[in-house]
Amino acid sequence: MTAENSSEGFSNYHLDRVQVEAILSATAEGDRESLIGCMAELHVADIADLLEQIEDDQRNALVTLWGDKFNIGVLAELEERILSEVVALLSRRQIAESVVELESDDIVDIVADLVPEQQGLFLNALGASDRAAVQRSLAFPEGTAGRLMKPETVFVPDSWRVGDAIDFLRARKDLPEDFHHVMLVTPKIVPVGQVSLGRLMAAGRDVLLLDIADEGVQTIPALRQQHEVAYAFSQYHLISAPVVNEHGRLVGVITIDDAMAALEDEAEEDIKRLAGVGGESLSDRGLGTAALRFPWLFLNLATAVLASIVIARFADTIQTMVALAILMPIVASMGGNAGTQTLTVVVRALATRDLTHSNSSRVIKRETLIGVCNGFLFAGIVGAVAFVWFDSQTLGFVIALAMIINMIVANVSGILIPLGLERMRVDPAIASSVFVTTVTDVVGFYAFLGIAAALIL
Amino acid sequence: MTAENSSEGFSNYHLDRVQVEAILSATAEGDRESLIGCMAELHVADIADLLEQIEDDQRNALVTLWGDKFNIGVLAELEERILSEVVALLSRRQIAESVVELESDDIVDIVADLVPEQQGLFLNALGASDRAAVQRSLAFPEGTAGRLMKPETVFVPDSWRVGDAIDFLRARKDLPEDFHHVMLVTPKIVPVGQVSLGRLMAAGRDVLLLDIADEGVQTIPALRQQHEVAYAFSQYHLISAPVVNEHGRLVGVITIDDAMAALEDEAEEDIKRLAGVGGESLSDRGLGTAALRFPWLFLNLATAVLASIVIARFADTIQTMVALAILMPIVASMGGNAGTQTLTVVVRALATRDLTHSNSSRVIKRETLIGVCNGFLFAGIVGAVAFVWFDSQTLGFVIALAMIINMIVANVSGILIPLGLERMRVDPAIASSVFVTTVTDVVGFYAFLGIAAALIL
Repeated sequence: MTAENSSEGFSNYHLDRVQVEAILSATAEGDRESLIGCMAELHVADIADLLEQIEDDQRNALVTLWGDKFNIGVLAELEERILSEVVALLSRRQIAESVVELESDDIVDIVADLVPEQQGLFLNALGASDRAAVQRSLAFPEGTAGRLMKPETVFVPDSWRVGDAIDFLRARKDLPEDFHHVMLVTPKIVPVGQVSLGRLMAAGRDVLLLDIADEGVQTIPALRQQHEVAYAFSQYHLISAPVVNEHGRLVGVITIDDAMAALEDEAEEDIKRLAGVGGESLSDRGLGTAALRFPWLFLNLATAVLASIVIARFADTIQTMVALAILMPIVASMGGNAGTQTLTVVVRALATRDLTHSNSSRVIKRETLIGVCNGFLFAGIVGAVAFVWFDSQTLGFVIALAMIINMIVANVSGILIPLGLERMRVDPAIASSVFVTTVTDVVGFYAFLGIAAALIL
Repeated sequence: MTAENSSEGFSNYHLDRVQVEAILSATAEGDRESLIGCMAELHVADIADLLEQIEDDQRNALVTLWGDKFNIGVLAELEERILSEVVALLSRRQIAESVVELESDDIVDIVADLVPEQQGLFLNALGASDRAAVQRSLAFPEGTAGRLMKPETVFVPDSWRVGDAIDFLRARKDLPEDFHHVMLVTPKIVPVGQVSLGRLMAAGRDVLLLDIADEGVQTIPALRQQHEVAYAFSQYHLISAPVVNEHGRLVGVITIDDAMAALEDEAEEDIKRLAGVGGESLSDRGLGTAALRFPWLFLNLATAVLASIVIARFADTIQTMVALAILMPIVASMGGNAGTQTLTVVVRALATRDLTHSNSSRVIKRETLIGVCNGFLFAGIVGAVAFVWFDSQTLGFVIALAMIINMIVANVSGILIPLGLERMRVDPAIASSVFVTTVTDVVGFYAFLGIAAALIL
């Protein structure tokens, strides 16, 4: 037996070109047998990716041909727009029959993304108690712990011993599919600790559960924002944590896989916000995306016009010495890049809470120092370039001085602007880069042309 | 009993201003009792953050005063530079006595970050078998699954039933601190499946373990890159996965908390690379950081000079009509921003594998469409601004035409450049933005000034 064929219990998924082509050609030819065969080999997450990546008409044909063999687990992995379109292709009976295969937190995600008419298809297919649990979760605002949690929890009295818990678990018939901890609760169902199944297995029957409870677990209020939940899981290496309502009563559990998804969302959001492409997804349609990107570009246009107004003040100087027009973008562009470097580090450090009141003044000093160092270095380089190119010591001196000023301003505004936005409770990822490049453009042009006007004319 | 005081088993950590000030003043006053009291209330991860954020001399004083009460768990949370400095303050005996409190994957992380003299302090303190396990992990290159894994695994023969496994686990004395799955292996210790402890608890004693094994688990080769491991955990919602050597033999297990940390690293890296601040950390010293940022800025200087060379070709045109110098940065800047929007979406979509051969041609079409739409929109706006400002229809027409060209070029290069880099196996996050802004600067100035030269002169 080799390592290869012995691993039959495991599959090594992923979507490769050959598979995708086989699926699309089976769809095009209406070969249902082959399609079902291909799909059976894929993980629902990969199928969802495929459905998001292909053309609308291919997707419709594929889902229609797949028909009643459609794996409902795919729905939990689809993004909003594609989800609605796929649900519209499924029959009422198909949904009603297979909804039991979904976990309740997945049903919450799916229903939240659907239009009201489609929501009924799922809610009505659930039993009364499941429907109530889903509706309880949906009552919490999007992006809160209440939405992220699984409502099914496994809890036992906090006075029990290991043996009691093992006997209780072994006797229960309705344990959730996946759980990793047993919550310990007071008679009022207030969680006071949790014991991992691993520790439960390792401990003697007489050991008090509270004595082997995890250290450093936090209860999470149901209204806590998901980015704070993600931070807590990442910072404290949590595997699961109990969610409580306003009375401190246990209402659900968040596990690390949910927190990981939230963490991924948050990092993704930061990257995209820094570039002004906030809530956009690759499967969005072209025109809609163009509209989404318009406001950010418009804001940038306003700042570009502002920079032009600065230049216009020095029109006479430029006319006298056209070399200024040739060199001026260098000063502005270097400032913009240096400022963006600083603000990217600062925005991330704020998000990961590595930048706090304990070190903000030191980081401001550090960024100023970096601005001074690189300012002088690039002043030397650019001054030399200008001197050689235009054979003018004065021009070399002017651009060098302007470079020093703009690089220092870039680094200082690269930290002060996000810190200021954070203090005003504006997400620094959204607005920082417009402000910083406005400052570096305006200061860059003003310093360079102003010094030139003063010294040359 | 209220919800507040009943949650005594749980702590709600975080580092607040009052705590930080209490710790720093206890350190300054040499009040060891208070310091130990403050530290006992904090999670090691928060203590590590504090040590990273305060000044070097404060950190030295704090660790020295804390003395033999220093919690060694803090070391696992520190970044490289600070780690070495803190280890240098600890006594050989202190390390030898407390190293047993660390998990083996944490020891691997710590030792990997230390200089050889310091590594010995940890390795020599370990028992022979633990030392061998740590050295086996260290033999794998940084950033691979072998480094990420925990070497301790819990495995049983794949022919066993639930009852066998429970009895075996209950009888074992040396179970790892935290484990969530039992691996099923062949006689040659090749993993063929895994059973979560939750399912084990829920199943009857006579059920075959293979029948309740998780679906869709992957074995991970020890040399697999950590970003691929992180992707697999996130895509397939894994909680843990077995790591195998080149013979397919089980050598360790990666759990989702390790994968979550890797995922965070990767997203962080992408954000920072896009801005040219690659491996930098906030606690790095100013001069070192200035040096780290220099190459990126230098590259940008080269592209800015390239843009200046383009402008220089049209020096006469500018001298004739100085309005061109005033307006030209607008065209370049709008192109740069539009290009950055596209490339950010594309770089992330490549990282999350949402952009593949299945949809690349469609995404290229989409981005072109977006460029056309926003190009015409902004052409209208900017053309009107230029017309009103300089009272010249020709100038309005010139800038409008240049804007359309540059916005389309920006969007197309914003997708083609990262796709091309990816195909050449260069990380698109590192190099894309320099190339894209070079293209948009050069094309922006060339189109605007070139059209002006042709039409106006």
